[in-house]
Amino acid sequence: MNLVRRDLKNLAAYIAGKPIPETQRELGLEKVYKLASNENPLGVSPKAIKAIQKALREINRYPDSQSFYLKRRLAQEFKLSPNNFVLGNGSDELIDVIIKTFVENNETILTANTTFLEYRIISKVNGRRIHEVPLKDFTYDLEKIRKRVNNKTKLIFIANPNNPTGTYVNKKELINFIKSLPAHTITVLDEAYDTFIDVNDFPKSVEWIRNKNIIVLKTFSKAFGLAGLRIGFAVAKPELTQYMEKVRQPFNLNSLAQAASVSALDDRIFLSKTKKNNLTGKKYLYRELAKIPVTYIPSVANFILVDTRLDCFLVFKQLLKKGIIVRDMKQYGLDTFIRVTIGTGEENKSFISALKEVIMNQKRIN
Amino acid sequence: MNLVRRDLKNLAAYIAGKPIPETQRELGLEKVYKLASNENPLGVSPKAIKAIQKALREINRYPDSQSFYLKRRLAQEFKLSPNNFVLGNGSDELIDVIIKTFVENNETILTANTTFLEYRIISKVNGRRIHEVPLKDFTYDLEKIRKRVNNKTKLIFIANPNNPTGTYVNKKELINFIKSLPAHTITVLDEAYDTFIDVNDFPKSVEWIRNKNIIVLKTFSKAFGLAGLRIGFAVAKPELTQYMEKVRQPFNLNSLAQAASVSALDDRIFLSKTKKNNLTGKKYLYRELAKIPVTYIPSVANFILVDTRLDCFLVFKQLLKKGIIVRDMKQYGLDTFIRVTIGTGEENKSFISALKEVIMNQKRIN
Repeated sequence: MNLVRRDLKNLAAYIAGKPIPETQRELGLEKVYKLASNENPLGVSPKAIKAIQKALREINRYPDSQSFYLKRRLAQEFKLSPNNFVLGNGSDELIDVIIKTFVENNETILTANTTFLEYRIISKVNGRRIHEVPLKDFTYDLEKIRKRVNNKTKLIFIANPNNPTGTYVNKKELINFIKSLPAHTITVLDEAYDTFIDVNDFPKSVEWIRNKNIIVLKTFSKAFGLAGLRIGFAVAKPELTQYMEKVRQPFNLNSLAQAASVSALDDRIFLSKTKKNNLTGKKYLYRELAKIPVTYIPSVANFILVDTRLDCFLVFKQLLKKGIIVRDMKQYGLDTFIRVTIGTGEENKSFISALKEVIMNQKRIN
Repeated sequence: MNLVRRDLKNLAAYIAGKPIPETQRELGLEKVYKLASNENPLGVSPKAIKAIQKALREINRYPDSQSFYLKRRLAQEFKLSPNNFVLGNGSDELIDVIIKTFVENNETILTANTTFLEYRIISKVNGRRIHEVPLKDFTYDLEKIRKRVNNKTKLIFIANPNNPTGTYVNKKELINFIKSLPAHTITVLDEAYDTFIDVNDFPKSVEWIRNKNIIVLKTFSKAFGLAGLRIGFAVAKPELTQYMEKVRQPFNLNSLAQAASVSALDDRIFLSKTKKNNLTGKKYLYRELAKIPVTYIPSVANFILVDTRLDCFLVFKQLLKKGIIVRDMKQYGLDTFIRVTIGTGEENKSFISALKEVIMNQKRIN
């Protein structure tokens, strides 16, 4: 008897970063630093907290299915119209909505082979084929991806900056790539980490939405510090968003998420503190990592991919024992790499000191 | 150029109940009663609010992707194991997960023709065929549904009690129906309104999950008063839930939802107040409706389907002007019916008085 869809039987599910309470429970540790999920180490804007407190009074009511106030606020922020936005229960859900809305049974999806794993998982869950093109120097290889495009290619997912590598494709490369695509292909630019960008040639992709088949994904989970509440949004022309609006579920965005995001957008001070902390932390980590026998990939995001030249799962476990949660890159096929989120000064220092010990001990053993 | 999936072009999206702020804005009304979405008129358990306040401190962290504490609490509540549960961003999301997990391209889904509209919408969004069998006396017609089952029938959705009719199928009817099904068919029992049941022959369906291909859906949006936070859950044997767990997205349940639900389950006093208010309100509404030239369908839930014998959209609009939001049943093909949620004493009284005026005025005009 075959109850489950045949093509799902071997689906490898997403493995999440280890939560702090679980680590405390398992290892009996009091102090645990989580540098595994690229969360905001400074917490969240106090304005967002205030907005949640207020919205709590009506928590027995269904959320506004149109996210009226949040869409209006986003329109103001980006100088666009509310109908340029689709809200999601995190960007994860929007990836699902996009695949459902646009990809027919016999059409295909393209992305890189070392990128956000949900593109692959959600494509398969929806019974859609996805081809993964190898990175070049840890960066999306747009030339090679372009060569794979054919008359069945409906969607291309580009994480920019890329996760887990922290690299990016620049404005010129990206616009040339998009201009070269056939009219039936939609490019999804997943810009979850855009707030942390500290280079001048990063694309202002939202300016392209009027004339191009692109969908830009952004999130409140990273710089805005609202990962726990689940808010992502898509920006695109109404010709695309109007169908995504029909496909998404009516109450996908909870009401506290709606209230919190509006106020988070208003708090420029918190955002600027967040950026500053990230830049300072990045410089510190670059400097300290250079003193250890590891290499790292320069990053424009809030995390750094580090090649430990050791079994990454071993390094992950050793760091865990010292109360530092990072992400081992086994799932991504990078067997000697870990990804570390840039934390507060104290967190970064603890990570470096723990990593030094782990690396030194290993060298002694081997 | 065909960017959007062809079969989605004519999809009719779900129409949500009108929110209170929107009604106040549009009609310039100060006092508005919403009796449109079967929410808990008493609000939410203060214990749940406290739990949210505490969880807010970690809102910058991703939710626990395993919902460890909530699953453990649910297991205790139902005397089952944590792996009998799958959590969702409302039951809506679980309907999507169930269809994705179990229904192949060439398989079909069965349900009633006047029931929760999301079964139809989500089936179509997933490119799956759904057949809708007419109700009999406003109740699921299990006999006729049974006759439609064939070797391609993978899922049957049964809302019990049914929304929008408030009717139910009893224990004996339901177990005989389930026993009669072929081994390749899974029955989904959507029990969103189970807490309000005031009859003795309602099925205790969770007791059947070990030996039957059934999935029971329950929610925190109705009696538990947490509609704004989006929490539904599925109960089934691990042979079914293990695949649903792979298909659902890792962070689908926000962290405040997880914290609130655990505490809401602990507050028996709030739940008992909720049930008492509903029963009192129902008796009052039955009594008062009997005095007006309308008919109603007896309900075991927290809402009543009322035949106004007038154009229901007109009645809806007239009630709206008086500050009462109900649901007109046009979308369900019941052109003279409205559905009203049982509210607080004050809300019920205002509804009856407004409905009387609307009906009397209409009679005078016609």
